[in-house]
Amino acid sequence: MQKTLREIARLIDGEIVGDDSVVITGVSGIKEADEGDITFVANPKYFHLVGVTRASAIIAARDLVATYKKPIVRTENPSLAFAKIVASFAPNETSPLKGIHPAAILGKNLSLGKDVAIGPYAVIEDCVCLGDNTVIYAGCFIGHHTRIGSDTLIYSNVSIRERISIGNRVIIHSGSVIGSDGFGFADVKGLHHKIPQIGTVEIGDDVEIGANVAIDRARFDKTVVGRGTKIDNLVQIAHNVIIGENSIIVAQAGVSGSTVLGKGVTLAGQAGLVGHISVGDGAVVAAQGGVTKSIPPNTTVSGYPARPHNIAKKVNACVQNLPKLYETVRALKKKIAELEAKLKKQG
Amino acid sequence: MQKTLREIARLIDGEIVGDDSVVITGVSGIKEADEGDITFVANPKYFHLVGVTRASAIIAARDLVATYKKPIVRTENPSLAFAKIVASFAPNETSPLKGIHPAAILGKNLSLGKDVAIGPYAVIEDCVCLGDNTVIYAGCFIGHHTRIGSDTLIYSNVSIRERISIGNRVIIHSGSVIGSDGFGFADVKGLHHKIPQIGTVEIGDDVEIGANVAIDRARFDKTVVGRGTKIDNLVQIAHNVIIGENSIIVAQAGVSGSTVLGKGVTLAGQAGLVGHISVGDGAVVAAQGGVTKSIPPNTTVSGYPARPHNIAKKVNACVQNLPKLYETVRALKKKIAELEAKLKKQG
Amino acid sequence: MQKTLREIARLIDGEIVGDDSVVITGVSGIKEADEGDITFVANPKYFHLVGVTRASAIIAARDLVATYKKPIVRTENPSLAFAKIVASFAPNETSPLKGIHPAAILGKNLSLGKDVAIGPYAVIEDCVCLGDNTVIYAGCFIGHHTRIGSDTLIYSNVSIRERISIGNRVIIHSGSVIGSDGFGFADVKGLHHKIPQIGTVEIGDDVEIGANVAIDRARFDKTVVGRGTKIDNLVQIAHNVIIGENSIIVAQAGVSGSTVLGKGVTLAGQAGLVGHISVGDGAVVAAQGGVTKSIPPNTTVSGYPARPHNIAKKVNACVQNLPKLYETVRALKKKIAELEAKLKKQG
Repeated sequence: MQKTLREIARLIDGEIVGDDSVVITGVSGIKEADEGDITFVANPKYFHLVGVTRASAIIAARDLVATYKKPIVRTENPSLAFAKIVASFAPNETSPLKGIHPAAILGKNLSLGKDVAIGPYAVIEDCVCLGDNTVIYAGCFIGHHTRIGSDTLIYSNVSIRERISIGNRVIIHSGSVIGSDGFGFADVKGLHHKIPQIGTVEIGDDVEIGANVAIDRARFDKTVVGRGTKIDNLVQIAHNVIIGENSIIVAQAGVSGSTVLGKGVTLAGQAGLVGHISVGDGAVVAAQGGVTKSIPPNTTVSGYPARPHNIAKKVNACVQNLPKLYETVRALKKKIAELEAKLKKQG
Repeated sequence: MQKTLREIARLIDGEIVGDDSVVITGVSGIKEADEGDITFVANPKYFHLVGVTRASAIIAARDLVATYKKPIVRTENPSLAFAKIVASFAPNETSPLKGIHPAAILGKNLSLGKDVAIGPYAVIEDCVCLGDNTVIYAGCFIGHHTRIGSDTLIYSNVSIRERISIGNRVIIHSGSVIGSDGFGFADVKGLHHKIPQIGTVEIGDDVEIGANVAIDRARFDKTVVGRGTKIDNLVQIAHNVIIGENSIIVAQAGVSGSTVLGKGVTLAGQAGLVGHISVGDGAVVAAQGGVTKSIPPNTTVSGYPARPHNIAKKVNACVQNLPKLYETVRALKKKIAELEAKLKKQG
Repeated sequence: MQKTLREIARLIDGEIVGDDSVVITGVSGIKEADEGDITFVANPKYFHLVGVTRASAIIAARDLVATYKKPIVRTENPSLAFAKIVASFAPNETSPLKGIHPAAILGKNLSLGKDVAIGPYAVIEDCVCLGDNTVIYAGCFIGHHTRIGSDTLIYSNVSIRERISIGNRVIIHSGSVIGSDGFGFADVKGLHHKIPQIGTVEIGDDVEIGANVAIDRARFDKTVVGRGTKIDNLVQIAHNVIIGENSIIVAQAGVSGSTVLGKGVTLAGQAGLVGHISVGDGAVVAAQGGVTKSIPPNTTVSGYPARPHNIAKKVNACVQNLPKLYETVRALKKKIAELEAKLKKQG
């Protein structure tokens, strides 16, 4: 596939600085790019590569100072613009799933939208609704009375239990489990009696869920993932958790039962939250942060137990300096002993 | 569905304080409850909600001081009692799995108990035993010579390898893997040679295993999960680990090879244990705790490296106070310099 | 099965000290061994068990001081030698997968090597290549244009997306997902727009991948796992990560996007690495280490944020000692006040 830089600039509403007739044959990262590729720069960490990349053209923000001899396409949001270009270069998929495979097993009383596709060995139990254009890959299990919206894409070997609700334009990657029982037991003299988990899970529109994620159904009521929220691989969402809209939950993070996250929250990788707390809108938990109490809006916390990041950084600097502090204190002790001895002598 | 409070009290052997003819139409958490719901309170964190919940009745311990105008049902263990009520309100499942689906694949020399149910596209290899009433959902794989007890429930897309032993009344949630090879290699000049993992896994009666858990088979001998132990989602149990009875392993915790846990142990979320150590009966590892050596019985540890929790808390308070300590030391240094100067002057 | 010690010594090129006619009937760990078993000792932690094990013979390094009355087989690498013995005692598998099961679904334009085995309900999309003797278990999904080498073993319910490349003699355990979309979004006013992930994954020869692992495909280019690298269960490898040869990634570790690991790197359990950094050859990250910047070769780091392990240990000793330091400082403060008072009096 090839496109001129002019065609590409039109696609992303960008302004070309340089030769607009350059022919682009591929897309690549700024480090790996070769002649013929177009690349982009958004992360300041990579600005120094602008002068040395082998790419034939580069997408950049309007205010980037050019140290680059080859054409630049300036645009508002280089990441977003580049995403569009990447999509336009994406390989033609030769076997997209189409129609309902004869080896799919369909229950009774289904409601199937237009152009639904279901792969072989998928099992759809009774009374399931699937919206228009929704695609269910091979080996998925969809429990009875589950409702899935339109234009949703569910990759192979996903398990969705009964009575779950999933929105439109949702993507769920392979191996994920939605609606397994919450982890709830009543303790009687050291024995753990199961508390039935009769609630459900509600996944909003435009949510993406990574591979091998686990999202438990509520004890009663529902576990909620708000619209536009993106969840990475191997994340744990416990029962009765509520996640607000447009949040980001990075790989291997875990949220304990009944905790409520606001809108636009970020949990970085391997962050962990105890149950029954709340996290304000726009709050950020740094990687591996261990959160033991509620977080106000727009606050970044880190460490274990998690503290406001500025304080945690200051405290951590103090910690790293401790060997020196111990020396200082030893020296002071010595000096005081000397002063004491002198005073005694004088006295 | 509806029940009078009288019927509910009888179910849980509770004592009603207030109007026993109230009609209950649903169950709910104390925060989310609406009129017609019954709720419960066991966690002191929620006691203040007793006066404001919209629920029509509440289950509480015998000694809770009532600040509540509506009927209370007093009982020994409110959580357990509520679990029973929840079960009695659980929705009728319209498509419980029954019988052996024609699209299940059955090997040779199986021993199948009464009323075994096997879903479509499950694969049962040769010489497998399944006890009475055991249910295997769609897409599961059960390796040859594996023995599974009675009344056990295995959800969709679970993989159980060969020669595994699983008890009665066990529940395994979707996506879990039991009996994968332990992670064992012999290092020869930087190359990692696989050590065959020819042991097995033994899961006791009444164990529950969450979604997307991994429990490795032993190198030889067996990896053991003791009866009554409950394991949450995304947990890692390495080869040759022994877990005692009635333990609780919360989501994303991990136990390294050959470590031995006693009875009634609790590993909170994301806790990690090195290999070849022992954890005494009743010990608790706090969330994200990183355990590097053996833990005596009935001890709570936290932090990395994990220490007894009282000490860890004290040390952590000291750490948080460090910026102040640095100031104090700076001030002392200044004072000592002043004293020195004075003394010199005097001398 | 039984073998004489002489036969065993020949198998591993070992030198027997003691009676070479002893009959061995099984293999076991040094703690669990019973009469008739052979065991081994490599970890110094277990040297004290040499005198008390019930095993009938023991494999040990040439320089182990014998405190053992029963026969010892001395050899260069006891772990490796024992691995060979274990393999020779491994149970005969009664139902190894053979041939292509009629319930496997095969796409068009496949290239299948000699003696390929495919289990029931596996789904192989169009244009897939499988090398000689490769085995794909039940319920696996292999996306179109994926190429898998020879002698590779893929256990049940693994999902491999399209256009992935997997080498020879690779082992992938159940539930793992290879080639799911990387977690990449362009942020526009708080909404997260998906960046297409059109790259691929390349898994080298002799790699082993545990259960329920997630390895994402690259945005463009490829995510790489170098030959001979071994990955444990529940590990997260993000898009565009490059892992060098013969590295070891222990359970529940996670590597963020575009990070580059050298050869012979070890990430211990639950370690986490931020994106866009590099880790030098032979570097080690201790369990739960949280790595926030690049690591030079042959360096061991630990803690969060991760530091060279020697420094981290020293700092941690200081931290554990803090309650004492606070006391010392309080005592110094008191002494200084006393000195001041004295001086004033004298003055």
